[in-house]
Amino acid sequence: MKKILAISASLLLMAGAMSAQELANFNFGGRGVPAPSPQIQNDSVTFRLRAEYATEVRISGSWMANPYGAGEMMRRNANNVWEYKCPLPSPEIYTYNFIVDGTAVNDPQNILVQRDGTRFLNMLIVPGERTENYGEANQRGTVRYMWYDSPSLGLNRRMVVYTPYGYENNPKAKYPVLYLLHGGGGDEEAWTSMGRAAQILDNLIEKGLAKPMIVVMPNGNAGQQAAATLNVATKQVSEQNAYVNSLVKEIIPFIEKNFRAIPKADSRAIAGLSMGGGHTLSATALYPGTFGYICPLSIGSQRSEQLDAQLQGIKKAGYKLYWFGCGKEDFLWQSAQQLDAALTANGLEHTFFVSDGGHVWANWRLYLNTFAQLLFK
Amino acid sequence: MKKILAISASLLLMAGAMSAQELANFNFGGRGVPAPSPQIQNDSVTFRLRAEYATEVRISGSWMANPYGAGEMMRRNANNVWEYKCPLPSPEIYTYNFIVDGTAVNDPQNILVQRDGTRFLNMLIVPGERTENYGEANQRGTVRYMWYDSPSLGLNRRMVVYTPYGYENNPKAKYPVLYLLHGGGGDEEAWTSMGRAAQILDNLIEKGLAKPMIVVMPNGNAGQQAAATLNVATKQVSEQNAYVNSLVKEIIPFIEKNFRAIPKADSRAIAGLSMGGGHTLSATALYPGTFGYICPLSIGSQRSEQLDAQLQGIKKAGYKLYWFGCGKEDFLWQSAQQLDAALTANGLEHTFFVSDGGHVWANWRLYLNTFAQLLFK
Repeated sequence: MKKILAISASLLLMAGAMSAQELANFNFGGRGVPAPSPQIQNDSVTFRLRAEYATEVRISGSWMANPYGAGEMMRRNANNVWEYKCPLPSPEIYTYNFIVDGTAVNDPQNILVQRDGTRFLNMLIVPGERTENYGEANQRGTVRYMWYDSPSLGLNRRMVVYTPYGYENNPKAKYPVLYLLHGGGGDEEAWTSMGRAAQILDNLIEKGLAKPMIVVMPNGNAGQQAAATLNVATKQVSEQNAYVNSLVKEIIPFIEKNFRAIPKADSRAIAGLSMGGGHTLSATALYPGTFGYICPLSIGSQRSEQLDAQLQGIKKAGYKLYWFGCGKEDFLWQSAQQLDAALTANGLEHTFFVSDGGHVWANWRLYLNTFAQLLFK
Repeated sequence: MKKILAISASLLLMAGAMSAQELANFNFGGRGVPAPSPQIQNDSVTFRLRAEYATEVRISGSWMANPYGAGEMMRRNANNVWEYKCPLPSPEIYTYNFIVDGTAVNDPQNILVQRDGTRFLNMLIVPGERTENYGEANQRGTVRYMWYDSPSLGLNRRMVVYTPYGYENNPKAKYPVLYLLHGGGGDEEAWTSMGRAAQILDNLIEKGLAKPMIVVMPNGNAGQQAAATLNVATKQVSEQNAYVNSLVKEIIPFIEKNFRAIPKADSRAIAGLSMGGGHTLSATALYPGTFGYICPLSIGSQRSEQLDAQLQGIKKAGYKLYWFGCGKEDFLWQSAQQLDAALTANGLEHTFFVSDGGHVWANWRLYLNTFAQLLFK
């Protein structure tokens, strides 16, 4: 039998070789021998791209002073490879791409890619304390892409659901649930792709810093069935709170039926960034007492009598934690300060977590990594 | 309350607008107004790319006579947009990219992207009978990314598991399982990304053409923890049948413990393409009687006494279906014919499904769409 398997193994090698050959033959524009990129060496990082026939190659990176600008020029090195070397930015996850004669291109040497709508951007992960929970943990949960019916929106829709390590092996254990909402322009994959939510929860739970929890990441664009890359239906939804109503009346029951979720306010948290922070404010205003943990991120609200009434409703219904975060350079910084003042004036105990920076994923990862440690305790 | 929500809605709009602004500001190399691409009109398809400063733009597509060649030239149209128009190829899923001054670039207007290793390629889906099960069904299953321990490989590894529509709502139903293996160069996402496995199963099950089943797609590279994009460990594994042993001794028990799987040979199918077809041959040779349904794809085996002994072992242990497919232009076509002859000579009832074309995903989608209808019946 050994010999037979050896024969079939040689076929496997042929198959493997052919596949590699296909790859090698595929037109990469004469890329030839790969040029490692990005390459971190001590305090610098070097990016490289083989683009023989290009006249001008730039790199645009989120760590640059103007991340939306024209980027920095790359230079041809002695091996005819375009190169850009810069000081290593501080520990964080950055995105970048190359611009070859005016056209944005991904780094064919970098295996780390995130999706932002229909843009695919390479990631540079700079190791350090800030990013230690953004990499792979040893004990990892399950990430599910699943579909649920929303009769109120008239759509079968997709959501992403994370269950923690051990969920499968502890069939009697019940878990609290965090409803984690994305921002404008995002979709149900935003928190796992750009937000590293699965890695952050895996690491926090493995270290005993967060309670094992289920994380539900629905699509907050009420007319969209699923992420734009899926080529499924979209429709107009004009009713203002359509998504928030669906979240509370359809998504929560679906989760509490299909997962071993604890169906109590004290075991439900809601958090969201930007538009999802608005959804968090609306959901807790319209359905006080549903969520014990309330975490709007990078959002605020103008002070008004109605806001006061809303907050009194939340206070009366009771909650365990009101935690919200905003960056000092966020364009919503002033409105976040107003929410802080309104919470104080209305006597709602809360934490206002103030960070540097603006309306960016660096902050949302930081916030999740911070407030997740406070939930369900 | 209505007014407050209106205020918070205006903040949402701001957030949404800002996000759009970010997108608009981001350096796409002066892409400007989008040029629709690909655009199918009657019997033609047009591809467009805005690349003002490029000297030469080509398109490389899998439908071309030489899909690994230099591609076809695109032309600047009157609006300064590069354009390429060609007759619509026959119904199938094709891949393509642009080559801007020698550098491969994705189509920034096309939302359909598949991953092949570290290459991201745009998809062109030409509608027709051949592709009718490749799009989204109305009733869709769940796709899970989950991790399992493989003590024999010394790794915690990722697999993709599909459960059919209705799995959650029928908590007493038990399901048969298809173990679906990828080829050399692939990983655990290959069948869902390039193979459209979830869509194919969704459609077949919805139409009543296939039995509802669980589909397990592990990573067949024994030393790899997960898809190359995940940045996790790899190690050298020298033991020849390490993966196949792990599949039978570790993956099957994990699935039958954690899912409502029917733990019987008649409810287990194994299928794989190329290297995964080799794994299918090895697994059924080493563990006869474990799988009732055996479907190696685009692979074969040289005739030998040992192969005969192996097939006699499978015959003796019993099986429900031996179905294998190969394209007439496949580089393994002759070895597939030898497997056919060996099965016949050894008196194993089987189906040899012969298709046009070679060692390509067009065939593997077709095979899955065909043999999945025969399983567990």
